[in-house]
Amino acid sequence: MGRLRLALAQTNPVLGDLAANSRQILDAARQAAAQGADLMITGEMAVTGYPIEDLAQRPSFLVASLDATRTLAKQLLDEGLGDLVVIVGHPDGPHEPRLLGTSNAPTAIAHNSASVLQHGHIKATYAKHHLPNYSVFDEYRIFIPGDELLVARVNGVDVAIVICEDLWRDGGPVSRVLEADAGVLAVLNGSPFERDKDEVRLPLATRRAIETDTIVAYVNLVGGQDDLVFDGDSVVVDGHGTILARAPQFREHVLVVDVDAADATDTDLPDNVRRIDLTTRNHPKPDLAPDVAELPDDREQLWNALVLGLRDYVKKNRFASVALGLSGGIDSAVCAVLAADAIGAEHVYAVSMPSRYSSDHSRSDADDLAERVGIHYTTEPIADLVMPFENQLGLTGLASENLQARVRGVILMGLSNMNGHLVLTTGNKTELAVGYSTIYGDSVGGFAPIKDVPKTLVWELARWRNEFAASRGEIEPIPENSISKPPSAELSPGQVDQDSLPPYDVLDAILDAYVGQKLGAEDVVQLGFDRATVDEVTRLVDRAEWKRRQGAIGPKISGMAFGRDRRLPVTYRPTRNI
Amino acid sequence: MGRLRLALAQTNPVLGDLAANSRQILDAARQAAAQGADLMITGEMAVTGYPIEDLAQRPSFLVASLDATRTLAKQLLDEGLGDLVVIVGHPDGPHEPRLLGTSNAPTAIAHNSASVLQHGHIKATYAKHHLPNYSVFDEYRIFIPGDELLVARVNGVDVAIVICEDLWRDGGPVSRVLEADAGVLAVLNGSPFERDKDEVRLPLATRRAIETDTIVAYVNLVGGQDDLVFDGDSVVVDGHGTILARAPQFREHVLVVDVDAADATDTDLPDNVRRIDLTTRNHPKPDLAPDVAELPDDREQLWNALVLGLRDYVKKNRFASVALGLSGGIDSAVCAVLAADAIGAEHVYAVSMPSRYSSDHSRSDADDLAERVGIHYTTEPIADLVMPFENQLGLTGLASENLQARVRGVILMGLSNMNGHLVLTTGNKTELAVGYSTIYGDSVGGFAPIKDVPKTLVWELARWRNEFAASRGEIEPIPENSISKPPSAELSPGQVDQDSLPPYDVLDAILDAYVGQKLGAEDVVQLGFDRATVDEVTRLVDRAEWKRRQGAIGPKISGMAFGRDRRLPVTYRPTRNI
Repeated sequence: MGRLRLALAQTNPVLGDLAANSRQILDAARQAAAQGADLMITGEMAVTGYPIEDLAQRPSFLVASLDATRTLAKQLLDEGLGDLVVIVGHPDGPHEPRLLGTSNAPTAIAHNSASVLQHGHIKATYAKHHLPNYSVFDEYRIFIPGDELLVARVNGVDVAIVICEDLWRDGGPVSRVLEADAGVLAVLNGSPFERDKDEVRLPLATRRAIETDTIVAYVNLVGGQDDLVFDGDSVVVDGHGTILARAPQFREHVLVVDVDAADATDTDLPDNVRRIDLTTRNHPKPDLAPDVAELPDDREQLWNALVLGLRDYVKKNRFASVALGLSGGIDSAVCAVLAADAIGAEHVYAVSMPSRYSSDHSRSDADDLAERVGIHYTTEPIADLVMPFENQLGLTGLASENLQARVRGVILMGLSNMNGHLVLTTGNKTELAVGYSTIYGDSVGGFAPIKDVPKTLVWELARWRNEFAASRGEIEPIPENSISKPPSAELSPGQVDQDSLPPYDVLDAILDAYVGQKLGAEDVVQLGFDRATVDEVTRLVDRAEWKRRQGAIGPKISGMAFGRDRRLPVTYRPTRNI
Repeated sequence: MGRLRLALAQTNPVLGDLAANSRQILDAARQAAAQGADLMITGEMAVTGYPIEDLAQRPSFLVASLDATRTLAKQLLDEGLGDLVVIVGHPDGPHEPRLLGTSNAPTAIAHNSASVLQHGHIKATYAKHHLPNYSVFDEYRIFIPGDELLVARVNGVDVAIVICEDLWRDGGPVSRVLEADAGVLAVLNGSPFERDKDEVRLPLATRRAIETDTIVAYVNLVGGQDDLVFDGDSVVVDGHGTILARAPQFREHVLVVDVDAADATDTDLPDNVRRIDLTTRNHPKPDLAPDVAELPDDREQLWNALVLGLRDYVKKNRFASVALGLSGGIDSAVCAVLAADAIGAEHVYAVSMPSRYSSDHSRSDADDLAERVGIHYTTEPIADLVMPFENQLGLTGLASENLQARVRGVILMGLSNMNGHLVLTTGNKTELAVGYSTIYGDSVGGFAPIKDVPKTLVWELARWRNEFAASRGEIEPIPENSISKPPSAELSPGQVDQDSLPPYDVLDAILDAYVGQKLGAEDVVQLGFDRATVDEVTRLVDRAEWKRRQGAIGPKISGMAFGRDRRLPVTYRPTRNI
């Protein structure tokens, strides 16, 4: 057996900020080297950030990325880290175009790659074979697939290198790892958080470790990028399925671990496998403490994902503060607490915007929350702003209800323009699914923290957050009344959501069936729901696509999303409910 | 030689309205049969409309579509049209899933298909081989590719059937048409309009006709579907490259033509080719007039595309009228005339919303246009609506400028909610590219008629539309002053666009290079543009992605689009201009 000390660098890149991302990798390499590591591995595309979308089709972006990777190799050498073998993810190109269609259609000119750096140079580069093109991934559209497996022999141990989707597909490069007799399988990942994803991801890594009889070193990115949240949770599993080390979720970390891997043998290389030979100095290796993080429970993971998604959107887009409307209801309460957890209460500006229809409890619940959480809090009554519109234009009924919501949007955007706040829009996934919102009104905002959280889960998270506070002897941030009272938009006298919508537990269950599980309307009825309710909900969902298209970005936390997972036509007039 | 009478049914389906789409096909079949056709061919997915996006992953949608196709075959029989061979496009499924990734990821369960109907039955079905996944197409993501070529032998002539992208790719089913000795190549298309597309599409059809020594019958859909405009322009080309018939652009048409095709031979079928044998009665064939439409010039095509995109979005989404702000500037003037051309001046409601900064010429130019075009026209001054916000919130500077635009947005949406108008947003492509607009202000609206038209082209179209009117002895709709005066947002005293932006001819040229041609900033400078200007424009473009994401749908009329052609990260912080 050969012993290697591995370092898994779980970094949080800013997309396009090549210099900052390289500094993160250098910092990680310093920590890895100080702990005596032989080999460090980053996440997928750690040099550029991920996903790079159509930047993959810009030659100048590819040239700059490759330059940054070469420069990183030199910087490692300059800082005395040249001996450490570093495997980094980056786009590689421009290459001969893979023509996707006609000669005037866009082409793919890049690989999604991992390069092995040592002694100031790129020693070899692997190109991802399997390009995912489902859910949030569009890689088949923008990358050229690779067809060669790369093995880096490091101090006599063969380390096979693959990227993310390569691990998930049967066949492909991973199936050749066994033939190639590798001791370690290094996997660079950009694997977004989803609820319960650790229930598929860890078993997969374990299964592949056993199948290929290797030690799998699974490195994931961490951080928010637009509507994705990478959760880290990097892990090392041996060929018996034992977890040797595991990094925490949702924060940067360098996970260092010793592995005893099979010695390389000099069998002939299978077809399409390339091998490079590297050695590191036999430098002193300090003792390592075990480093196996435990995952918190489902709701805490979810909360942390929402917090990180929000924090990184604010920070990476260089906002210093956020503003949001605080209604006393549950959605804005949860968003305010998420914001305070993400960037500190002192950077959160809440605005109460009562109308003539706002109840006393709305104001007092909003006051109460602001007080508990310690965020900035002001009141801007809307009556004097709404009335001139109503009078001049003669607006009544629904037009008047929407007007109130839009006046609130104008207030928040005005404060944003004056003070530089990012406006948060507080709508939940259930509302978005059925279009229960005012476009350019309560939908105003640059980021939607709970966009992918159904209403019933919003309540659950609120209760969890209060319990979490109580368990730590802190003040419960969310007033009980905001959790327990019937939800209302308060746009007309005595209005509650259930005047227009089915009860939220029924609505969320129908949405899960119709949207999440893609069941037809008739199949949803067969599950036991009332036909008229199913017809109404499916009609609302089919008509709400134009609103969803114009929605703000928000963290995706489930496989059942309404963003790119659900690309539907706006002009869609089914003859009957299907 | 065998003579066949072909009918190319250029229909305009409404996505999802299976009953209405089937009626369109039945109507076309009636016309085809009355003219003695043996074989009718529709466009791609004529039964459902195209593109169906993620509806392809809903089993219930697929079942309903296949039911509709079977029902259509029976309806043809019931109406005495059972003898006519009809090839229709529709999705076909659900089939065994093509697993795209993990077991919990979405899967593809449908083919993009063409079925041959006769005597009340589906006789055979072809599945598209090449699934485009570039530009506006995402088919690889949602469909299973086919692997068998289908030949329908009709009265002794072999008709090979392929679908759209199959024709564009070298290799694949079309390359087997020659081996299969087919006499006619029927191609079902959903090919969206782009500027100058006829310069690639017709030469391609011609080249394939010559290469395969067949008569190519190229049938395209017509109509607007969200941001796509299908232009029709169906065409029949013989093996010498001669155009035998051509349908008009932008309207429904049944193109009937006689073709003299090679007789079928009884050579062995190549692998993966299936053949079915059909005959039609030797019914009387009335004489046919030649039917070869001529394409109008580039600007007229473009105008017609914008008109159809707007008309179909309004009609298919069941609006009866549109509303828009009329500023006296060129963008809103062009949008108003497009709307009048699309749905009739009597359904267009223009609102002048002057502020304290509005010039006299703004109002008079708006008045003048409304008068010339005959649209509804009202004035809603904004001063009394803006002031309460400014006073209550203390808004100044940019916040005050944006406030004016947002108050206008609230007015238009209020009128929309009261009267059911679809609001048009009048921003052009240049503004959208650099983010020169107020979010929730002038960007308010459900449809953006000139979203894909650069500012310099807006002027060109305005001049063309006036010339077109003059050539027909009609009043020129657009006041000369709206075309010739310097563009201004009029949000502060004396403001003109060129205070903030480079001259539009320079700006559009830089955008074409940076966005359209995907050149790096340095390469754009090398073309001869001022470095500071290039840096400023590229910075604006990179920062405007979040606004573009929240934009309204609008017709796509060029390969250089900012919608799905250009999927970029919002959080993107390049270290330097790349």
